[in-house]
Amino acid sequence: MHSGGVLNILGKLLLLVSIFLLTPIPFSIYYDDGLTETFLHCAAIGGVAGGLLILLFRPIKELNLRDGFAVVVACWLGTALLGTLPYLLSGQVPSFIDALFESMSGFTTTGSTILTDIEALAPSLLYWRAATQWLGGMGIIVLSLAILPLLGVGGMQLFQAEMTGPTNDRLTPRIQDTARILWNVYLWLTVLLIVLLMVGGLNFFDAITHAFSTISTAGFSPYNASIAHFNSFYIEMVIIVFMFIGGINFAMHHHVLRGKLFTYWQSEEFRLYLGLSIGAIALITALNLHAAAYETIGAALRIASFQVVAILTTTGFTVTDFTLWPSASQLLLVGLMLIGAMAGSTSGSIKTVRFLLFFKHVRLQLRSLIHPQTVGVIKLDGTMVPREVMTAVLGFFALYFMIFLVATLVVTALGVDMITGTTAVIATLNNIGPGLHLVGPTHGFADLPDLAKLVLSFCMLAGRLELYTLIVLLTPGFWKTARRPQWRFIKP
Amino acid sequence: MHSGGVLNILGKLLLLVSIFLLTPIPFSIYYDDGLTETFLHCAAIGGVAGGLLILLFRPIKELNLRDGFAVVVACWLGTALLGTLPYLLSGQVPSFIDALFESMSGFTTTGSTILTDIEALAPSLLYWRAATQWLGGMGIIVLSLAILPLLGVGGMQLFQAEMTGPTNDRLTPRIQDTARILWNVYLWLTVLLIVLLMVGGLNFFDAITHAFSTISTAGFSPYNASIAHFNSFYIEMVIIVFMFIGGINFAMHHHVLRGKLFTYWQSEEFRLYLGLSIGAIALITALNLHAAAYETIGAALRIASFQVVAILTTTGFTVTDFTLWPSASQLLLVGLMLIGAMAGSTSGSIKTVRFLLFFKHVRLQLRSLIHPQTVGVIKLDGTMVPREVMTAVLGFFALYFMIFLVATLVVTALGVDMITGTTAVIATLNNIGPGLHLVGPTHGFADLPDLAKLVLSFCMLAGRLELYTLIVLLTPGFWKTARRPQWRFIKP
Repeated sequence: MHSGGVLNILGKLLLLVSIFLLTPIPFSIYYDDGLTETFLHCAAIGGVAGGLLILLFRPIKELNLRDGFAVVVACWLGTALLGTLPYLLSGQVPSFIDALFESMSGFTTTGSTILTDIEALAPSLLYWRAATQWLGGMGIIVLSLAILPLLGVGGMQLFQAEMTGPTNDRLTPRIQDTARILWNVYLWLTVLLIVLLMVGGLNFFDAITHAFSTISTAGFSPYNASIAHFNSFYIEMVIIVFMFIGGINFAMHHHVLRGKLFTYWQSEEFRLYLGLSIGAIALITALNLHAAAYETIGAALRIASFQVVAILTTTGFTVTDFTLWPSASQLLLVGLMLIGAMAGSTSGSIKTVRFLLFFKHVRLQLRSLIHPQTVGVIKLDGTMVPREVMTAVLGFFALYFMIFLVATLVVTALGVDMITGTTAVIATLNNIGPGLHLVGPTHGFADLPDLAKLVLSFCMLAGRLELYTLIVLLTPGFWKTARRPQWRFIKP
Repeated sequence: MHSGGVLNILGKLLLLVSIFLLTPIPFSIYYDDGLTETFLHCAAIGGVAGGLLILLFRPIKELNLRDGFAVVVACWLGTALLGTLPYLLSGQVPSFIDALFESMSGFTTTGSTILTDIEALAPSLLYWRAATQWLGGMGIIVLSLAILPLLGVGGMQLFQAEMTGPTNDRLTPRIQDTARILWNVYLWLTVLLIVLLMVGGLNFFDAITHAFSTISTAGFSPYNASIAHFNSFYIEMVIIVFMFIGGINFAMHHHVLRGKLFTYWQSEEFRLYLGLSIGAIALITALNLHAAAYETIGAALRIASFQVVAILTTTGFTVTDFTLWPSASQLLLVGLMLIGAMAGSTSGSIKTVRFLLFFKHVRLQLRSLIHPQTVGVIKLDGTMVPREVMTAVLGFFALYFMIFLVATLVVTALGVDMITGTTAVIATLNNIGPGLHLVGPTHGFADLPDLAKLVLSFCMLAGRLELYTLIVLLTPGFWKTARRPQWRFIKP
C-alpha cells in the first residue's frame, strides 16, 4: 500500500471540508449565535491538518486496489473526526464520543442523534449538522458508482455507471469525470428542493437544512418533532418525492435528464423499489386501520406513505411515533430497514438489487431441484449476472449477518434491552436513523453507554462503506505487504 | 410425478406408525389411565388408512426426483395427522389445531407445546407424545443422511453417508441399507440412555420418555418444570452428554463404533460444534455472573452448560427460566438457536456446517478483494467443496431469511408482540421448542391465536425438511408435469 499517497489524498479532502466549515458563518452572523469564531477556528485547524498532509506526503499517480480501500476508509474517518470540531469547540456537545457519533451519523447519512433537545443547539451548528449529511451524500454517490465498482466490493461491479465511455480507461480521471456528472445532478436536485420547500412557506434556513437531509436520505432535522414540526401536507409530499428520488440510482437520474425517459422503468431494481414502497404502504395502512390506530383512511395513508418512504430510503425522518403502531406494522418497518433503496443512490442498507438477486437465486435453486440437469443463469435487466457477482452479493448477506450479530451482542451485553439493542444496530448499520423502543422516534441515542455509541459509530461506517471496504482493512492479509509511508523530502 | 407410488409408500409408513400406536397400551394398562381402547382405535384407523393406500395404489420400482420430494413431505404430513388421533380421541386435547401443533412438534422433534399443564395428561398419552419425537428422530437421520443428499437439497449432498460402499448404486436398496445401519446406532444409544437414567433413580416411564426426547434432540418432558423437575446433577450431566451426542452426525457414530476413533476430531464441523458449545458456555457463565444472576461459579456454569447444549442441539429442555437472564445472554441463546448442531444429526436449525462454509466464504471474499487475480477454493476436511454445494448452502440462508420474515409478519399481524412472535418463529422453524417472552420456558404456545399455531406448525415442517424440500412443492413448476395417480386395478 502507498500510505503516503493515501495520506496525500486525505489531506486534499480535509482542505475541501475546511472550506465547507466556513459556510455556517453567514448563518452564525445572521442569527447572531456567537459561533463565527468557532467555525473560523475549525476551518483553520482542518486547513492546517490538510495542508500538512499534502506537504509531507507525495501524491501517487496510479492507486492500486489496497490504496483504494485505504483511501475510502481514511477519508470517511478523517472527515468524521474533523466534523466533530464544531460540536466540541462550541461546547454544545462537550463529550468527544457524542460528537463523534453525531458527526459520523451526519457524514454516513445515518441520521441517528445523541441530542435530546435538538432545538437548543445554535442555528449555525444545526446548519453544519445538516451540511455533513449533504457532503456525506456526495461522497456516497461517487463511492458507490465510481469507486466500489472498481474495487469489486459486494457485487457493486454491477453498478459501474459507465457515463464517460470506454475510451477513458485510466482510473483517476474516470472517477473525476463520473463524479463531476453525478454532483451536477445532486446539486441541481438540491437547489430545486430548496425552492420547492420555500414555496411551501419554509424560511431559507429550514429549507436548506431539510433539503440537505432529504436528498442525502440522511434524516437530521433541526426540530425535535422532525417533519411533524411543520404539520403540512404539501411539505410532506415534497419530502416524500425527494426522499424517493434520493433512493434512486443517480446514474439513472443523469440518463433521464439526458432525455432517456424510460431509464427508470427499464430497471428491474427500480420496479421492485417502487413495488415495495406501494405494497408496504398498502399493508401498513391496512394493519393500522385494522388496529384502529387512525380514524380515517386518508390519515392512515398519509402517515404510512411518509413513514414507509422515509424508512425504505433509510432517511429516517418521522411524522409519528411508530413505536405506538401494532407490532406487525413495526416489524414491517424493520423489514424495510433491512432492504433499503437502490444501489447507486444515497440510501444505505442492503439495497433493493441485492434482495432482487437473492430472490432470483432462490428461484433458480428451486428450479434446479426439479431439473438438476439444466444449468440456469441469473439475469438482471436482460443481462447475465456473472457468477462472481452473485457470490459477492450472497457473501454480503453473510458478512452483514455476522457484523449484526456481534454488534448486537456487544450492545446488549452493555445492559441495553433486546429490542433497543437490536434495532439500534439495524438503524446504524443500515444508516437509517431511529430504531424502536428506547431509540425510537421520540428518543435519541443519548442514554446509551459510551461503548455502545462507539460500536454503533463503527456500524454506521461499516454500513456506509458496504461492509467489505472497512472489514478488509481489519484482516491481517491486507497489511502484510503494506509499505511504510514515503515522505516527500526523504528519498527512500 | 408418480402420485400412486408416493401414496403407496405413505400407506406402508402409516401401517408402521399404527404398530407403534399399540406401544402406549402397556403404559395405559400399568397406570390404569383408561386410554387402552383409545389407542386400539387409533391403531385401527391408521392401519385401515395405510392398508387402503397400499391396496389402491401400486408401488413404483424406481422413484424420480419429484417423487422423492413428494414422498418426504407426504410421509411427514401423514404421520403428523395420524399422530393427532390419540390427543383428539382421548378428549385430552380437544382442538384439532392444538393436536396438530403438538403432533407436528413431536414428529419434527421441535418440542414446542400447546399444553399449559403437561402433568394433567394421561401417562400413556405422555408416552405417545415422547414416542412421536423418537420416531421423528429416526426419520430425520435417514432423511438427512440418505435421502436429502440424493435430492441435492441445501448442500446436503456433502453429507452423503457412503456407508454401504459404491458398488450398490440403486436408490431404494441403498437408502434401506443406510437406514438399517443408522437405526441400529440410534436404537442402542437410546437403550444405553434409558439404562443410565434408571441408574440415576428414574423409573422406567420417566427414563424412556426422557431418553426419547433427548436422543432425538426434541425436548418434550412429561413434567411442567422440564428437567428442573429432577433437580439432579447426575441426570443433568447424562442428558447434556446425550443431547450433545444427538447433535453429532450419526454416520460418525457408526464409524466410531466401528473402531475409527478419531472420526469426530477429524471433522471441522465437529470441532466448531464443540468450540461453539464451550465458548457459549463460558460467555454466558461470565455474563450471568456479571449480572449477579447466580451466586457461585459452579451454579452459573452448571445452568449455562445445560441451557447452551439444550439450545444449540435444538433440544429445548430447560432447567431455568432463561428469560430472566440478562439481555446479552438471552440474545446469545437466540444466536445459538439460529446455528444448531451438526448436519446428519437429529438436531434442527441451520446446522453448524452451513455456518462453517459461510465463514469460509466470507474469508475467501475478503481475500479475493485484495488479490482479485487468485482463484480461491473452499475446502471442508481437506476436500474441495463444489461450487454448486456452496451456492445451495448460501441459497439456504436466503430461503431461511424469507420464510422467517413472512412467518414473523403473519404471526405478529395476528396481534402477537414482537419478541414473542420473532422467537416463536425461530423456535419452531429451527425445531427448538421454547422461545422468549410469552413463549418462554414457563409458558407454552397455548395462548397464541389458532392461525398463528398453524403458521408455526408449517414452520416446524419447513425447518425439519430443510426448507427446500417443502417449498419446492409450493412452486408451480413442480406440478406442471405431475401425472394423475395410477390405480392398482385400473390400467391407464
